[in-house]
Amino acid sequence: MADYMELALKRQSCRQFAEKPVEHEKLAKCVEAARLTPSGCNAQPWSFVVVESPDMVAEVAKATMQLDINQYMAKAKAFFVVVEEYAQLIPKIAKIVHSQYFARGDLGAAALSLCLEAESQGLGTCMVGIFDRTKIRELLNIPKDKDVFIVIAVGYAESDKVRKKDRKPLEEIARFV
Amino acid sequence: MADYMELALKRQSCRQFAEKPVEHEKLAKCVEAARLTPSGCNAQPWSFVVVESPDMVAEVAKATMQLDINQYMAKAKAFFVVVEEYAQLIPKIAKIVHSQYFARGDLGAAALSLCLEAESQGLGTCMVGIFDRTKIRELLNIPKDKDVFIVIAVGYAESDKVRKKDRKPLEEIARFV
Repeated sequence: MADYMELALKRQSCRQFAEKPVEHEKLAKCVEAARLTPSGCNAQPWSFVVVESPDMVAEVAKATMQLDINQYMAKAKAFFVVVEEYAQLIPKIAKIVHSQYFARGDLGAAALSLCLEAESQGLGTCMVGIFDRTKIRELLNIPKDKDVFIVIAVGYAESDKVRKKDRKPLEEIARFV
Repeated sequence: MADYMELALKRQSCRQFAEKPVEHEKLAKCVEAARLTPSGCNAQPWSFVVVESPDMVAEVAKATMQLDINQYMAKAKAFFVVVEEYAQLIPKIAKIVHSQYFARGDLGAAALSLCLEAESQGLGTCMVGIFDRTKIRELLNIPKDKDVFIVIAVGYAESDKVRKKDRKPLEEIARFV
């Protein structure tokens, strides 16, 4: 069986992408992994725009460099743009919560799934939550009533050095009863 | 390298738990995997209550059976209760969005990470989003100002049969530009 911990330890934000282009098939397989993600009521409240043509990659990169800390985006070789879609809940649950109640959690899971599949294929990713939403919508013809949840930059990493993860200690975040 | 797709295809909601108890060490490793999950600004807006003592497991099970479709919870051998915590964003980003802006996506990713580690260790899980929040808070001493994001039931699955996943086709949810 696949060792998940090994993968979880290895996947990290990639901020230095190599010049090597990324194969279309690998990008498609990342979306396939995201497609399989579990979601509340199996509503699958997501869609994905895979940006891989060099001109469009350059335009999307510009729209993700709203913050100066994101300048490394200029070297990303492709992007996944994750869009929130309407969630059709089962009637029993739709009586209790609104349609999008589970959606952001589901989208976060789908984004992680995509990044894990990328790592599994030897690709580096970086998730970006702050970007020029208006520009991304215009570039990719995403309707105004749909939220662009996240942009994920992808490419081969310059280095395969695995950094130590900076996280709160287990004792601080978990208790056993 | 671990094959993520293999794991993604294998992990599925478990609704029939075997009588076999679950080892404490395996539960702790699931939380360790969740701890490593990436989050917006690395804010880690989560905490976990691992419910493993039989009396408390029985009480939590009752609080998750609000819907008749969740009666299988009675046979879960342990629970993870995932709580939303305050997210400390970096100053540059805190100027743009409120503290909890990324939190639900981060929590969804952490919940998936936990379930994937469980699967990797041979354990079945089921995520439940509708439950008696007031009761869960009372049982586990969770303050009223903190949202209980999700409850995850865990145990050994009765059967290792992998079901075909019911998902929208790739063409419907993805486009390549």
